[in-house]
Amino acid sequence: MADFNTIAQQFTEFYYNTFDQDRKNLAALYVRRHLEPLYSAAIQGVAGIIEKLTTLPFEKVAHKVSTLDAQPSNESGGILVMVTGALLVDEEQRPMNYTQVFQLLPDGSGSYYVFNDAFRLIYTG
Amino acid sequence: MADFNTIAQQFTEFYYNTFDQDRKNLAALYVRRHLEPLYSAAIQGVAGIIEKLTTLPFEKVAHKVSTLDAQPSNESGGILVMVTGALLVDEEQRPMNYTQVFQLLPDGSGSYYVFNDAFRLIYTG
Repeated sequence: MADFNTIAQQFTEFYYNTFDQDRKNLAALYVRRHLEPLYSAAIQGVAGIIEKLTTLPFEKVAHKVSTLDAQPSNESGGILVMVTGALLVDEEQRPMNYTQVFQLLPDGSGSYYVFNDAFRLIYTG
Repeated sequence: MADFNTIAQQFTEFYYNTFDQDRKNLAALYVRRHLEPLYSAAIQGVAGIIEKLTTLPFEKVAHKVSTLDAQPSNESGGILVMVTGALLVDEEQRPMNYTQVFQLLPDGSGSYYVFNDAFRLIYTG
């Protein structure tokens, strides 16, 4: 199996490509296992997460990753991924800075699912 | 036991107060349990983390938390904490934006230790 850095990079590339092309297709990444997947504190479960993602107030979006840090998150193959980057929505010319954290857990069949997902825009002071 | 949001808030307040006052005292938070605690990808273990923190190129530092998101990170009481904020170092007048992620794990005696720690400054484009 690939090392956690490689998995984190492949996941991040796939995630943002999917997000930027057709974000309802992200549902496959949030499959429920033991616990409901989490998106921010208040939103749980695949249906809630996908409703949130598909009703975000923009049509076009492009993510550009600036930094990616990956670490093992447990002794069972979990991976913590912290991303910082910029995103452009619709016709807006100025990118917004964001940070996003994922915890990926192995799904038992050689692949991973998103267990934790937390996202914040960075407002510069 | 307090809920994970309360624990995350208390931890974050304690962590940055300690960091801003005398950061070598953070060592107690990174006690080794099953796995070495991690700080970014390349730095592991309490000694390495504290050497990194205490040799950062500034004397005075003040963290100001802007956002804090907490989620359960496993079924054993782990907590994922994502912070965004600003920090001021030495005599610099302009705050730098940062993001930091912790995974806290229960230490078996009612307290928590830091298992994952990832930090990035946000450079605005």
